Amino acid sequence: MRVAVDAMGGDYAPAVVLEGVAEALKLFPDVHILLVGHQEKLAYYLQKEHLKEGPRLELVHAEQVVEMGEPSTASLRAKKHSSITVCAELAARGRADCVVSAGHTGAAVAATKVKMRILKGVDRPALSTIMPAVDGHFVLVDAGANTDCTPLNLAQFALMGEVYAQMLLHIENPRIGLISVGGEDSKGNHLTKEAFKILSNMPINFVGNVEGHDMFFGGADVVVCDGFSGNLVLKTSESITSAVGHWLKSCLMKNTFRKAGALLAQNAFTELKAISNFEEYGGAPLMGLNGICIIGHGASTPKAVRNAIRVANDFAKMGFPEKLSARIFECGVQYAPPPSGTEENKPAENHPDTPAEQ
Amino acid sequence: MRVAVDAMGGDYAPAVVLEGVAEALKLFPDVHILLVGHQEKLAYYLQKEHLKEGPRLELVHAEQVVEMGEPSTASLRAKKHSSITVCAELAARGRADCVVSAGHTGAAVAATKVKMRILKGVDRPALSTIMPAVDGHFVLVDAGANTDCTPLNLAQFALMGEVYAQMLLHIENPRIGLISVGGEDSKGNHLTKEAFKILSNMPINFVGNVEGHDMFFGGADVVVCDGFSGNLVLKTSESITSAVGHWLKSCLMKNTFRKAGALLAQNAFTELKAISNFEEYGGAPLMGLNGICIIGHGASTPKAVRNAIRVANDFAKMGFPEKLSARIFECGVQYAPPPSGTEENKPAENHPDTPAEQ
Repeated sequence: MRVAVDAMGGDYAPAVVLEGVAEALKLFPDVHILLVGHQEKLAYYLQKEHLKEGPRLELVHAEQVVEMGEPSTASLRAKKHSSITVCAELAARGRADCVVSAGHTGAAVAATKVKMRILKGVDRPALSTIMPAVDGHFVLVDAGANTDCTPLNLAQFALMGEVYAQMLLHIENPRIGLISVGGEDSKGNHLTKEAFKILSNMPINFVGNVEGHDMFFGGADVVVCDGFSGNLVLKTSESITSAVGHWLKSCLMKNTFRKAGALLAQNAFTELKAISNFEEYGGAPLMGLNGICIIGHGASTPKAVRNAIRVANDFAKMGFPEKLSARIFECGVQYAPPPSGTEENKPAENHPDTPAEQ
Repeated sequence: MRVAVDAMGGDYAPAVVLEGVAEALKLFPDVHILLVGHQEKLAYYLQKEHLKEGPRLELVHAEQVVEMGEPSTASLRAKKHSSITVCAELAARGRADCVVSAGHTGAAVAATKVKMRILKGVDRPALSTIMPAVDGHFVLVDAGANTDCTPLNLAQFALMGEVYAQMLLHIENPRIGLISVGGEDSKGNHLTKEAFKILSNMPINFVGNVEGHDMFFGGADVVVCDGFSGNLVLKTSESITSAVGHWLKSCLMKNTFRKAGALLAQNAFTELKAISNFEEYGGAPLMGLNGICIIGHGASTPKAVRNAIRVANDFAKMGFPEKLSARIFECGVQYAPPPSGTEENKPAENHPDTPAEQ
């Protein structure tokens, strides 16, 4: 499998990306990397990681980079030769089987949607991410690609999460929950109430509305919501975890007894950090594309980059897009383009700036 | 100040409510309680807390209780003699200065809106709650009363939070942030983008969009959002805090060293629990009413009930509704009822089941 890696994307690119690539090449023998970025700028980091072009590492030049502050459409307009656009083109032309980027989320969404195109039957691709729960994990879809959604979008997100959970978490019949403000069927906003009706009639394992406690204490394997809400859950979880860590530290440093206790138990705190670390889980797949794209957190570590490469590789091997498309038609929730239309693959311009930064 | 307390509302009512009332009578000498509930059923608990009718404790009979699973409109239709409806009537008739309930949130919202009526210029009342942040707190509005909102609602929520922060947190010029999916002005969904424009033109200390990290690490004193999002932030925060506590415990119990360390540092964990305990902060005021209503968490402890009584008392003394109404007109964001209309005080039936359970 050939993975196109955006070497320039991410807060600590290209250094961290190349470290991740070096690890992936060592650990996953079937991975072939197409490293996309400004070749001159990469030279130093390649040497540092003892990486050389060879049968499993191909270098592809890209003149530009979409910076974090730029609009998402930069990947399609001002910066047509950016690393993420070149990655998407490699996938579109069949030279790569999947794309990995830890750069500008919106730019990656825009570039892949236009270049790789949207999967048959899908209205809008969505980002999913794996979240830690007590005694397990759950898949959150949409984690931030679409800030305004329709009930049909949410029905399709449910299937994206279902196929994800089946393929990567090996859960045969994943329990699918809908984020709402109360467990009862009648609770929710206009969007979730309509989505609830559709989900109830689909041949899936729909467990109804879920709230905070249900999510983090094992109430569902897949949690479905619009991208605004998903991003809110993700960011709130990350921040509150970090705030609790901060409070814990300051409580432990208050006197000598506590400091001694903290020293004795220090491995427990390291372990806690790993459990509640959201980036251990291998990036967020952008699902619903005619291909595979994994988007990493902007602050990705080498381990996160390496995990994203592994997930991309697994998705490609298992034929994720084909399975998702089949499932969408099977459940009768395929997107019907408006009758006027030749716009089956709607361009990303529909919501140019909405994709949230991860 | 006379506080009407719904003795029957809450998961552990009436026992916990009466414990809280007993504490409040001891601690706040200027509080006068109107205890509303089924007098026969209360007799046992009154005796247990050594509470007797007297100059500072008046008993008011209410035949019914709105149970948690019932629709919000039960307080207005099937159960017109419920404890929360009677509380709202006492406030409406001027016999009470404020209402406190830890019962069914939606029922309390419906009863108070219809009986006490909505404040001049306000479109929809909203719930606010104080959330812990690293090195401080922030006020979250709307925490769950309105699941579908307009940009004007969000502008009014900002002023509710502003007056709250001024009066109870003593912050002269509170920094007001808008929950979104990115810090840049252009990020958000349709609702937040429109609200951003209005907020930018108001004479307030608007600091722009805020995300998870900004919220919990001191980026704003007031955080504004629709009630669906607010409820999501609240529930996610509570659940992830509880999940982290669970993970911490299991990490600490893994071997003898860690157990010994945990024992030495045990006071730190107790302290951590208090910091991240969301119910310490005195209930959620329902703001925008022609009066004062504080809604407690269903699982309120006696301390939470006592704190809610203190906050209700403070709000009443400081003339919260008058100040809020004045500020709304001053900022030019008053609600204009549709021209057809005599519906200045719109009945709660507009969104009967939307208020989220706290």
